[in-house]
Amino acid sequence: MSAQNLTTPTRGFLASEFQARTQKAQALMAAQGLDGILVLSEPEVRYFTGFQTLFWQSPTRPWFVFIPASGKPIAVIPEIGAALMRQSWIDDIRTWSAPAPDDDGISLLHDLLHPLKRIGLPKGHETAMRMPLADWERLMAGLSDLNVVDATAITQGLRMVKSDAEIEKLRHICAIGSASFDAVPEFVSVGQPLDQTFREFKRTALGLGADDVPYLVGSADTGGYIDVISPPPPRPLQNGDVLMMDTGCVWDGYFCDFDRNWAIGQADDTAKRAYDVLWRATEAGLAAAKPCNTCRDLFSAMSSVIKELDDSGGDIGRLGHGLGMQLTEQPSHAAFDTTVLQDGMVLTLEPSLGYGAGLMMVHEENIVVRDSGVELLTKRAAPDLPILR
Amino acid sequence: MSAQNLTTPTRGFLASEFQARTQKAQALMAAQGLDGILVLSEPEVRYFTGFQTLFWQSPTRPWFVFIPASGKPIAVIPEIGAALMRQSWIDDIRTWSAPAPDDDGISLLHDLLHPLKRIGLPKGHETAMRMPLADWERLMAGLSDLNVVDATAITQGLRMVKSDAEIEKLRHICAIGSASFDAVPEFVSVGQPLDQTFREFKRTALGLGADDVPYLVGSADTGGYIDVISPPPPRPLQNGDVLMMDTGCVWDGYFCDFDRNWAIGQADDTAKRAYDVLWRATEAGLAAAKPCNTCRDLFSAMSSVIKELDDSGGDIGRLGHGLGMQLTEQPSHAAFDTTVLQDGMVLTLEPSLGYGAGLMMVHEENIVVRDSGVELLTKRAAPDLPILR
Repeated sequence: MSAQNLTTPTRGFLASEFQARTQKAQALMAAQGLDGILVLSEPEVRYFTGFQTLFWQSPTRPWFVFIPASGKPIAVIPEIGAALMRQSWIDDIRTWSAPAPDDDGISLLHDLLHPLKRIGLPKGHETAMRMPLADWERLMAGLSDLNVVDATAITQGLRMVKSDAEIEKLRHICAIGSASFDAVPEFVSVGQPLDQTFREFKRTALGLGADDVPYLVGSADTGGYIDVISPPPPRPLQNGDVLMMDTGCVWDGYFCDFDRNWAIGQADDTAKRAYDVLWRATEAGLAAAKPCNTCRDLFSAMSSVIKELDDSGGDIGRLGHGLGMQLTEQPSHAAFDTTVLQDGMVLTLEPSLGYGAGLMMVHEENIVVRDSGVELLTKRAAPDLPILR
Repeated sequence: MSAQNLTTPTRGFLASEFQARTQKAQALMAAQGLDGILVLSEPEVRYFTGFQTLFWQSPTRPWFVFIPASGKPIAVIPEIGAALMRQSWIDDIRTWSAPAPDDDGISLLHDLLHPLKRIGLPKGHETAMRMPLADWERLMAGLSDLNVVDATAITQGLRMVKSDAEIEKLRHICAIGSASFDAVPEFVSVGQPLDQTFREFKRTALGLGADDVPYLVGSADTGGYIDVISPPPPRPLQNGDVLMMDTGCVWDGYFCDFDRNWAIGQADDTAKRAYDVLWRATEAGLAAAKPCNTCRDLFSAMSSVIKELDDSGGDIGRLGHGLGMQLTEQPSHAAFDTTVLQDGMVLTLEPSLGYGAGLMMVHEENIVVRDSGVELLTKRAAPDLPILR
C-alpha cells in the first residue's frame, strides 16, 4: 500500500457530532441530578468542543470546559486559545490572560459554578487533574455549598462507543500504520542502529500521511526482548534478534495503537512458538469480540490460549484496551473489567506472554466491535514470525 | 548544516547527576522540615530517576516517586515499568500489577507515607496531578496525621538551573532544530498544502537526528497569521503569505522550542516592520539576559521595543519561559515573575505583537544564561523577514 492508495477523509466533525455528544452527556447528567460536568483534560475538552491543538504540551496553562445541564458547553480558557476556540461550535468563551499564577482561571470558574448545587468531575480510574491541586483546593474552599461527584462513568462511557465519523478517522490512521509496517523490510537492515530504525519508521509514517507519530516504543535483542516501553538504544540490529515496534500514529486527533514483530535473519523455535501462540490468542480475541460479551470474556478467550506457553498472567496488567483520541482509553481487557461490548467500540487486542529466559512478546491489532461481526482496522499480522533478511 | 556536522552527545546521565539533584532537593527539604517529596509527573519522575519512556502517553496508570529526607528515591510504579526502572540508579522499586482500579498503587503509597508527618507535593503554578483525584482523596483520608505542603518551589527551582550535561543535550537539539529550519527553502514551495509542509519539516528534523518532533504549530496566511497554536490546515501556500513554524523537537528527553517566519514570494511593509521590531526586541532580550536581572527585567526589555508597534500587551501572557525536559518550564518572562536569572538557566526569548487587521507575529530563540555572557543555543533568525521564492 502506498500513500496514493489511502483516500484521506475530511478533517474535523460536523457541529451535529458535538451536539449529539453534549446531549447524550446531558441526558446522563439529568438522570444523576447533576447541574453540569467540568472537564479539564485535552481529550475531554476536545470531545465536547472540537478544540484541537498541540499546545497542551505546554504545562503552563489550565483549560476548562463546563457542560451545563442544557445548552452548549462553556469554555473558560487562556486568551491565547480564544481565536482557535471561536472556530468551534460553542458560543460562550470566557478568557483570561494566562499565565497568571495568582488567578489562573479560578475566579472565572468560581463565578460560573457558585450558583450550582451539584456537578460532576471525572476523577476516577484513568483520569488526572490537569491543573494545580492548590488551585483546585482554593476553588473548592470558595464553593462550600457545591457538591462535586465523580462523573468518570459518564464521560468514559460516552467516549467508549465511537461514532461512524470517529471510526472513519481511526480506520484511516490504522491503514497508514499498516502501510508503514508493510514498508519495514524496505528500510530495516542488519547493522542499523535501533534508534535509526525508529526514525525511519516515523519518517515513513509521516510520508504515508500520518499527522504525527507521537508514540513509538519497542525493542530488539537476541532471541527476544525483555521490555516493551523503552526508548530505542543505538545498538545495531543483529542476526538472530527479535525486533518489535509498537506505534501510536495520529491522524486528525485519532490514534492507532498496534505493534509488529520480526526476526532478523533467522528465528529460533522458542520465538516462533511464542509468536504462534500470540497469533492464535488474537484469533480467539477476534472471535470473542462481539456485542454482549464482556471485556473479561475477551481477556479469558485470549489468556486461555496464552496459557499454553505462559500461565503467569504477565506484567502488563491487561490484554488490550479502548482506543480513540488517546493511545489507550477505557475499557481494559482484564479480569476486573465487566464492561459489555457494544457496536461501535474501538479496541485493541494485545495479548502478551513471557517465554525463555525472561523474554517477552506482545502482539496487537485494532478492531471495531460490530453487531454484524468484528471489523479489523489493522492489516492482520502474518501468521508466522516474519523474517527480515 | 547537515546531519554529518552534528556530533551526537552521549545519551543518559551519570548516576552522579541524579545523586546531585536528589541531594540538592534533600537540603531544601531539610530547611523546610519535610520528611520527603512525592512526585508523579513525567518530568519530575525522570528528573530524579532518569526513567524515560513514551509510555506516559497512556493515561491508564499512575506512577509515583518519593524522595525521602535522605537516601535514594523510592519508586512506586506499575509492574510494566519495573524492568526499565531497574536500569536506573535507584534500588527501592515497589510495583503492583496495574491497571487495578480498586488499588492503583494507593495501598503501597499508604504504607510508604503513613510513618511520616510532613511531606511536600508540587501542587502550585504549572503543576498537575497525574492521578485520579478520587484516589488522592482516598489516600489522604487514610493519612489524617500527614501534613502535605506545596513543594513546587523546590522542584521547579532545582529544574530551572540546568547542569552542563543537560545543556549539552539542549545545545544538540537546538542545533538540529536550527538545521531543520535552514532546510526549509529546500522543501517549501508555493502551492504546497500547509499540512504537507509540516510533515516535511518533521521528516527533515528526524533525518537530522531529532528523536521526535512532538510539537509543531504555526500558520500561514495573507500578510500574516491570526493564531499560533492551530494544527496546520491543508490550505496551499500562496504568494504574499507569511508562514510561521514553531517547533519543539526532542533529543534524549530534552526540548528545543523556537520558531521562524518567512514571507512566501513577497512581503508587505507591515509584515517587514513587525518582523524588524520583534528581531530588535529579541536583541534587547539577549542584552538583558544576564545574572542578577529578573524575568521581569527581560520582559520589560523586550516589551519596551514591542511598544513601538503594539502596546496592548498581547494575548500570549508572557514573552518567553524556561526550557528543558518540557516544552515550557518555569520561569515566565512576565511582569509578575521576579525570578532572578542565574548561570545555567535555559530560557526562550519569545517576543510577540499584534499588527495590521488582527494579525500577530511571534519570534523565538533559545539561550543559556551565563556569568560570562548569554549563550545562544539557536542559530539567530535573519535580521530581515526572509522571503521564500
